[in-house]
Amino acid sequence: MNKVTFLGGGSFGTALSILLAKKGVTVSIWDRDKEVVDEINNERTNNRYIKELHIPENVTAYYDLQEALKDTGCLVLAVPSHVIRNACKSLKGKLPEDIVVVSIAKGIEEGTDLRLSEVIEQELNNPIVVLSGPSHAEEVALEYPTTLVASSKDMVSAEKVQDLFMAPHLRIYTNDDLVGVEIGGAVKNIIALAAGVCDGIGYGDNAKAALMTRGMMEISKIGFKLGGKMETFFGLTGMGDLIVTCTSMHSRNRRAGILIGQGKSLAEAEKEVGMVVEGVKACRAFYELKEKLDVDMPITDILHRILFDGLSPNEAVSGLMERDKKSEKYQ
Amino acid sequence: MNKVTFLGGGSFGTALSILLAKKGVTVSIWDRDKEVVDEINNERTNNRYIKELHIPENVTAYYDLQEALKDTGCLVLAVPSHVIRNACKSLKGKLPEDIVVVSIAKGIEEGTDLRLSEVIEQELNNPIVVLSGPSHAEEVALEYPTTLVASSKDMVSAEKVQDLFMAPHLRIYTNDDLVGVEIGGAVKNIIALAAGVCDGIGYGDNAKAALMTRGMMEISKIGFKLGGKMETFFGLTGMGDLIVTCTSMHSRNRRAGILIGQGKSLAEAEKEVGMVVEGVKACRAFYELKEKLDVDMPITDILHRILFDGLSPNEAVSGLMERDKKSEKYQ
Repeated sequence: MNKVTFLGGGSFGTALSILLAKKGVTVSIWDRDKEVVDEINNERTNNRYIKELHIPENVTAYYDLQEALKDTGCLVLAVPSHVIRNACKSLKGKLPEDIVVVSIAKGIEEGTDLRLSEVIEQELNNPIVVLSGPSHAEEVALEYPTTLVASSKDMVSAEKVQDLFMAPHLRIYTNDDLVGVEIGGAVKNIIALAAGVCDGIGYGDNAKAALMTRGMMEISKIGFKLGGKMETFFGLTGMGDLIVTCTSMHSRNRRAGILIGQGKSLAEAEKEVGMVVEGVKACRAFYELKEKLDVDMPITDILHRILFDGLSPNEAVSGLMERDKKSEKYQ
Repeated sequence: MNKVTFLGGGSFGTALSILLAKKGVTVSIWDRDKEVVDEINNERTNNRYIKELHIPENVTAYYDLQEALKDTGCLVLAVPSHVIRNACKSLKGKLPEDIVVVSIAKGIEEGTDLRLSEVIEQELNNPIVVLSGPSHAEEVALEYPTTLVASSKDMVSAEKVQDLFMAPHLRIYTNDDLVGVEIGGAVKNIIALAAGVCDGIGYGDNAKAALMTRGMMEISKIGFKLGGKMETFFGLTGMGDLIVTCTSMHSRNRRAGILIGQGKSLAEAEKEVGMVVEGVKACRAFYELKEKLDVDMPITDILHRILFDGLSPNEAVSGLMERDKKSEKYQ
């Protein structure tokens, strides 16, 4: 593959662009923000999203979509989950149908509860590959060892994406369980938000480890019901991504949770984080889904009450700790 | 239960003593170190193990074992794994056989590869309960919310121990899978040591999350082969304890790993940590066990080569990252 186009010049897209450019691939980045485009082309940096990193000469940014797409061999959707549908609409008629579309966003569409690959499928006829796993963009850009999973209904396309991104510091595995990969990636943001609340109250490592363990059960229960495989939830895109999101300050979800745990309202927390907090939308969507599918998700339940019904975080934890004594199986 | 005796005045034993004393239970602590005994009785502190905490008046420390055991209703073995057998031998003939023995150490016995409850069983005829889970002693003592699991072949005894330790900030679950609880607790120390090496080299959160995820697979594979249940490994005593041990500076295993990752030898690291590093012994024991049982444990394998064959940590990671491309299932 000689040329790859990124839709969106955010942190993860830029990190992957640099990686591909260093492998000798020609990269084009489309962004709607002219300042980002100009900074990439003229300064060779993208400081709003990835600080102090040099962007190689074979990366070119475009404000014009048609130009960015010219002769491309692969398209990477590097926009937040809530604009995926519109991004796909803008691609209609401009992208040959044999070009692989890679999605790196996590979440489900509000209103429809569709997985993001399903949204893309409704809008485009291209093969779709989801790239997911424990991967802060900053660390990928700094060439720290990282593992990702390329998942698709079409394993030939997944293997193409595996070949494209494999590098000495980036190891890509393939996985044919697209449902499991996408659901794990979406639900872990709910648990990360709750873990942040736990940190914000001032509880310690013991409580957070317990919360993450129970959160893992929640991911696997709803994910299994939706058709994903257990082994996927306990793999890199489920457990791996959960761990990285719950324990690092890079995570917006965790940061929003910390503010709420400290007593801020949801609106205040979202404003202070200043970017999309995917876990809030995921909490709303999965709260409805779990009721519909009759799956027990106590953490999602309590987080929903904290976020939308004004339950105080402290009371919420007391409630969890003081229930009847139980065996671990029925926790 | 009116009186509980702790064998060993270490950090976790002292934290649980304070908790029981606050519930109104009379507690006696036996320790072989006269300074620890005197400090508890005279100063109401145990600063070597738990800093700046007041020990209530209904806790008494003893240098004489017989006195500490007088009229006790429950005995807690709060000594490191390698002295469990001798501790049990010293109890022979001094402890009525209906008194429940609680074990809070983690590991397997070197040489015999026995789980600690099996060691106790060989020496004493009492009912045995293992108390395990994600629980830094410091946080239990400070009354941060914590969850533990009481596991036993004899569920009546497990429930007695559940009742004994349940408190507003300490939630105890029962679990009848004693094998799973003990194996998870032992193997997670190997993974925590490896996670420390990863931190010591200077790798980031992405690599560590991947290592922990693959480590979880290793725990469940060998544990399942040894007769434990999958759900136990993914519960509080497996995954929960793994998370807390891999992410906190309280963990001696992780601290030793960091020093090795920074280039120190095993001997230097053990000397600097100054306390027993259970993961080193566990790595040696499980390296042999996995060969005998033909179970694939790549992290244990590589850690063994780093610890005992002089493999450099950097080379070890490169080796892991540069293998052939694979699907996630066969990672």
